[in-house]
Amino acid sequence: MKRSVSAVSCALAALSTLFAADPRAILSPETRGSAVRLREQAFAGSRAADWARALNDQVGPRLAGSPGDREAVAWALATLKAQGFANVRAEKVKVPVWQRGIETGEVTAPYSQKLTLTALGGSVATPEGGLEAEVLEFDSYEAMEAKPTAVQGKIVFFNKKMKRAVDGSGYGPAVAFRGSGPARAGKLGAAGVLIRSAGTDNERLPHTGMTRYDAAVPKIPAAALSIPDAELLERLIQLGKPVRVRFTLTCRALPEAESANVIGEIVGREKPDEIVLLGAHLDSWDLGTGALDDAAGCGIVIEAARLIGQMRVKPRRTVRVVLFANEESGLAGAIAYAKEHAAELPRHAAAIEADSGTGRPLGLAWNAGPNALPVLTEIAEILSDIGAGELFPGGHGGADISRLVTAGVPLFGLQQDASRYFDYHHTANDTFDKIEPEALDRATAATAVFAYVAAETPEPFEKIPAHKRKLTQF
Amino acid sequence: MKRSVSAVSCALAALSTLFAADPRAILSPETRGSAVRLREQAFAGSRAADWARALNDQVGPRLAGSPGDREAVAWALATLKAQGFANVRAEKVKVPVWQRGIETGEVTAPYSQKLTLTALGGSVATPEGGLEAEVLEFDSYEAMEAKPTAVQGKIVFFNKKMKRAVDGSGYGPAVAFRGSGPARAGKLGAAGVLIRSAGTDNERLPHTGMTRYDAAVPKIPAAALSIPDAELLERLIQLGKPVRVRFTLTCRALPEAESANVIGEIVGREKPDEIVLLGAHLDSWDLGTGALDDAAGCGIVIEAARLIGQMRVKPRRTVRVVLFANEESGLAGAIAYAKEHAAELPRHAAAIEADSGTGRPLGLAWNAGPNALPVLTEIAEILSDIGAGELFPGGHGGADISRLVTAGVPLFGLQQDASRYFDYHHTANDTFDKIEPEALDRATAATAVFAYVAAETPEPFEKIPAHKRKLTQF
Repeated sequence: MKRSVSAVSCALAALSTLFAADPRAILSPETRGSAVRLREQAFAGSRAADWARALNDQVGPRLAGSPGDREAVAWALATLKAQGFANVRAEKVKVPVWQRGIETGEVTAPYSQKLTLTALGGSVATPEGGLEAEVLEFDSYEAMEAKPTAVQGKIVFFNKKMKRAVDGSGYGPAVAFRGSGPARAGKLGAAGVLIRSAGTDNERLPHTGMTRYDAAVPKIPAAALSIPDAELLERLIQLGKPVRVRFTLTCRALPEAESANVIGEIVGREKPDEIVLLGAHLDSWDLGTGALDDAAGCGIVIEAARLIGQMRVKPRRTVRVVLFANEESGLAGAIAYAKEHAAELPRHAAAIEADSGTGRPLGLAWNAGPNALPVLTEIAEILSDIGAGELFPGGHGGADISRLVTAGVPLFGLQQDASRYFDYHHTANDTFDKIEPEALDRATAATAVFAYVAAETPEPFEKIPAHKRKLTQF
Repeated sequence: MKRSVSAVSCALAALSTLFAADPRAILSPETRGSAVRLREQAFAGSRAADWARALNDQVGPRLAGSPGDREAVAWALATLKAQGFANVRAEKVKVPVWQRGIETGEVTAPYSQKLTLTALGGSVATPEGGLEAEVLEFDSYEAMEAKPTAVQGKIVFFNKKMKRAVDGSGYGPAVAFRGSGPARAGKLGAAGVLIRSAGTDNERLPHTGMTRYDAAVPKIPAAALSIPDAELLERLIQLGKPVRVRFTLTCRALPEAESANVIGEIVGREKPDEIVLLGAHLDSWDLGTGALDDAAGCGIVIEAARLIGQMRVKPRRTVRVVLFANEESGLAGAIAYAKEHAAELPRHAAAIEADSGTGRPLGLAWNAGPNALPVLTEIAEILSDIGAGELFPGGHGGADISRLVTAGVPLFGLQQDASRYFDYHHTANDTFDKIEPEALDRATAATAVFAYVAAETPEPFEKIPAHKRKLTQF
C-alpha cells in the first residue's frame, strides 16, 4: 500500500521552490524539495525490509568469524554491487572467534528444576561435568561487595529487573551486570555467575551478549537465565533454604579469523572525497537470525543510500554505506575503520548509524559543532510529518561509529522507539517475523533525508567540540 | 489486596435470607447466601495461585511416568492431607511412558538455517544421523492427498495458521494436523512430518502435544516448528527452489509405568455417597513447568473444595477433588477413573473440570438434563458479579471428565478467556510467571459456587439425555 501523509507539505515545498525562499532557511528551496521527495518516496514503501529479509533468510546467524559471517560479507558485496553502488569493497578485519557449544542448567536443591540459560559472549567453559554450587542472589555490586567472603566458591546470581522504556534507557542499568558482573564476582572468588537476562520480555529465551573479563582476576563461567527462569530461581531462594545450581558450558575461544567491513558508495557530484557515512553492522549474535540486530539497520542504510543514488542530481558529497564487522563481540570492525581511515576522517562530514531494530523513528541524536543545529532543525521539520521530528542532543551515534568521536567527526544516531526492542535483543527470538516493514520505511525516510541534506549543504557540519570528544566504552 | 465488587449483592442476599424468598427461585435463601459468601471469599483473595506455585516450583515438569510425575503424586497427597481433605488417596493408574531425547533441525538447501523444533508426543525417532529430505508444504489434507505420489520420501510440512479467539476455537482446526498429520502423511509414504506449531504466539518456542499414529501405516517421525521457524520455512519455499531439511529426534517409548489419580474429599453432611467431582490434571508436558496446564486448574479445584470444606455447614453431597494422571499423553487417568468408579457413576451428581490456564472465567459450559438449566441460571446470576455469568450449552466439560459422558454424569466446564492460553500451551514458556492470581481467584469463586450449589440443591441434576452421551475423541 502506498502511503502519504503530506501531500500538502510536498506541494508547499514545490511552491516555495518556484516562488519564494524563507529568508531564515539554510536549506535552499531545491534541497528542501529534494529532501521532501526522498521522504515521500521511502514512506510510500521502500525496499528496506527486502534487504533485511534477504540477509536474514539467505544468511541467518552470523557471529564474527563463523561461516555465517563469511556468507554475510559475500551477500553484502553482491547486494551492493547489484544495486549499483560505486567502489564496492570488503575491507579486511581480524575478528575474535568464540563458539557457544553445549549449555545446560538445573536447580539441584531444594527441588529439581531445569534452567534455560545461555553463555555470555566470551565466557569461559565450566569445568568438565559442570559447575555445581550454592547460589547467592544480589541486585547490586554494593550488596555483593558488602560480604566478600560469603561469595567464595559460590555461584553469584545478579537479579536486576530491566525497565521497559521508549528510549531503551532501562538497558544500561541492567546490562551492567552482564558486562562486568563476572569480573567483579571473580575478583571475590566466586565460582561462576548467572545473571537475569537484560531484557523486557517474559519468554523462556535467554539474552546473550558480551561480558568483559578483567585480566587481573580469574575468569569464571557466566551465563544468562531467561527471565522466567530467573524468577523461578528468585522464588526458590525466597523459600529460605540453600539453593544449589549446576550448569555446564562448553563454549570456547578460537584463533582470530578474517572478516570485513563492507563498503559501497554513492559518489558525490562536487566533493566526492567528503564523506557522509551511513553505518549498520553486518554481524549478529548466534542465537537468532539477527533480524532486528542488525539486518534491520543494514536494510535501512542500504535503502536510504540506494534512494539517494537514484536521484536525478546526486548530492554534493559522497554517501558511503559501511556495514561493519564484529559489532557484537569486540567492535573490531569499528576499530579497524577508525584506524585505517584515519587520514580521511577530517573529510567525514557526518556519520549516522541504524542499530535499534524495527521501532518507528522518533528523530535524530546529534553530537556536532554549533552550526549543525539550524540545519538539523530544518531536517527535523521535514521529518516531523512522519513522526520523526525530535532532536536529542548528545550520544555516540552508535557503537560502530562511536570510535570516530576522537577525530571530531559529527555523529548522529537514528533514534527509534525501543519499547519492544529488548524483548528480542540477543535472543533466539530475533527473527524476521518481528520486522515491521512500515516502520523500516519511516526509518529509511529519516535516514535518507538526513544523509541527503548532510551531503548537500554547501557548508559542512562543524566538528565535535574538543571537550565533547569522549570515547564511549561498550 | 482484598477485592469486593458486590457489597450490595452480599447485603441483598443476607436480607433475602431474613425476610423473603423469590417464589420463582430454586435455591433457598440460605443456599444463595452461602454461595454469595463463597464467591466473595475467593474473590477477595484465594490460595489458588499458592497451590499452583507450589506444584510448579516444587515439582515442575511432570510428564506421565517421569520422576516429576511421581513427585507430583506425592505432592498432591501431602497437600490434600495437610489441607484437611478426607479420604485422601492415590488410585493407581498404568501410564504410557515416552521420552523426548535430542531434537535438532536445520534447513540444508537452498540456504543453511537452524530450525527450532520439538518432537510431537509419541513420535518415533528419526533414523540415526537424522532424516534429510525435500520439504513439501500443505495447509490441508485435501491439497496433500491430491498429489499422493509426490509425497513419497518427502518431509511433509503442514503450515496451518491458528487464529486467536476468546473461546480457543482456533485450536481445533490447527491441532488437527498435530493429531493425524503424521498418520495421513505416513499413509502416502512420506518420510517425516513437520507442523507449524498449534499456537497463537510468535516466539521461538515450539508447541508439543500428542500425535496419533494409525497402526495400519508406517510410523514416521514428526515434530513441531516454532512459529517463527515455520514462517522462515514458508518464505524459503516461496523462493521457488527446492527446500531441504534435516532433522534428528531421539525420542522413544518405554514400558508402562505406575502413576495415580489423586483424590481428596469434603464429605457431604447428608448424602455422602453422592459426588460432585472437581477435576484437573496433575501431569504436564515436559518442556515447561506446567503452570497454566494444569497447575492452574489443580490450584482452582483444590482451593474451591478447601473453601467449601471450611464452611460451617457442609453441603449435602460430597465434593470430590480428582487430580487426574496422564491427561496429556493418553488419558489413562480419565479412562481408569471411569472404569474403576463405574458402579459409583450413577451417584455422580455433577463433574466439572478446570483445564484452561489462567484466563478469567467467563461462565459455565453444561451438558445435563433439563432440570439443570433453572439452577444454572441462578448460579450464573451469582457469578455475573465477577464477570463469569455466561452459560454455554454443550461440551464435554474437560478431557478428564469427558469419559463420564457415557454414564450420563452431568458434565460442566469452567469456561475461561483463552485469548492468550495458546501463546504458551505445551511450550517451554508454560511457566509460573504467566499465572494471574486475580484471575485464578475469580475462577476459584466460580468453581466453588457451582460445586457448592450442585452439592446442596435437594434435587440433583438430571442425567445427560441418552442422545447427548457422545464420547469426544482427544
